[in-house]
Amino acid sequence: MTYARVQQFYAAQMRLLDDGKAEEWAATFTEDGEFGQDRRPAPRRGRLDIGAGLRRAADALAERGAVRRHWLGMLTVDERPDGTLHTRYYALVIETPRGGVAALHLSTAVDDVLVRHGDSYLVRSRYVVHDGHTA
Amino acid sequence: MTYARVQQFYAAQMRLLDDGKAEEWAATFTEDGEFGQDRRPAPRRGRLDIGAGLRRAADALAERGAVRRHWLGMLTVDERPDGTLHTRYYALVIETPRGGVAALHLSTAVDDVLVRHGDSYLVRSRYVVHDGHTA
Amino acid sequence: MTYARVQQFYAAQMRLLDDGKAEEWAATFTEDGEFGQDRRPAPRRGRLDIGAGLRRAADALAERGAVRRHWLGMLTVDERPDGTLHTRYYALVIETPRGGVAALHLSTAVDDVLVRHGDSYLVRSRYVVHDGHTA
Repeated sequence: MTYARVQQFYAAQMRLLDDGKAEEWAATFTEDGEFGQDRRPAPRRGRLDIGAGLRRAADALAERGAVRRHWLGMLTVDERPDGTLHTRYYALVIETPRGGVAALHLSTAVDDVLVRHGDSYLVRSRYVVHDGHTA
Repeated sequence: MTYARVQQFYAAQMRLLDDGKAEEWAATFTEDGEFGQDRRPAPRRGRLDIGAGLRRAADALAERGAVRRHWLGMLTVDERPDGTLHTRYYALVIETPRGGVAALHLSTAVDDVLVRHGDSYLVRSRYVVHDGHTA
Repeated sequence: MTYARVQQFYAAQMRLLDDGKAEEWAATFTEDGEFGQDRRPAPRRGRLDIGAGLRRAADALAERGAVRRHWLGMLTVDERPDGTLHTRYYALVIETPRGGVAALHLSTAVDDVLVRHGDSYLVRSRYVVHDGHTA
């Protein structure tokens, strides 16, 4: 049950990301949510900052006429006594230019902490490690 | 339960597609099933038409000695009061030429309507949007 | 339930593989586990042999500074009366060189036989067919 619910949460969340719905996407994080990446010096903190980052990225993509799809897979879900879910998964970014051919853009490994929110979840923290990244 | 069942339905359906089993694949649609794509002017309608389309594609692939794999992911399943399931997912086509290297061929986003059929499902309608497609 | 458990088993197993944890990975097979591939003349048999194969591959990858990610998808699980699970799935290998761009390395189709082991599973046998392979 939990596993399928988490899978659907991520499917919906990534759809918002790929559709460039910055505010709705930011709202899938907790108010004080944190989004860190190995190739950024500091994490984004809070919905405003997280949403603003997507807004810029989505505008740049739209200008180039490209479509991105985030794929998650190889998901494990670990339920902790405090009710949080610690998840780990791989994520790919696939990009298709207008009139062009789909190509792999990125391969990553991600660690999330999720908290329950009604029938679904919110991301309290996310940390993305980019394959091939060199500091 | 439903979510896992739908995942397995799609896994089996895509296996039939990739194995070129045109008639068995067509039988995973309802008799009057509809298969539309943004890059075709009109949808295929009914099992005969849907199966014939796969037969031609599978023959062309076999002639070139290439293998295709359809991957579905980022699936959401929405159960409607009328008993139908409205699903959304991403789909990739990965092609490997004989003696060659696997490559991304297509990235798409798909909307289906499924109806129950015994322990499994049939596709009543499918609509595929191809990333990068320009009218 | 079973389906989600099997999905998580594979996610954890592939993580061990991609992290190069040879002994822990080998321990996800039964003692007499068998790992066959269409492009090898004979299967690996037993944990020692299976682990040694991964150890060599992981060392070679580490030397080149590359990261590999195994993705499984399109999974079907068939429970047999004897309690074993016969699974079929597609698997991709995605490789990212240090400082470079992620690329598809391999597309495969796999057949496994799993046996229950506590709350999880062990692989009794695995057979991998490589797309594009020519004998």
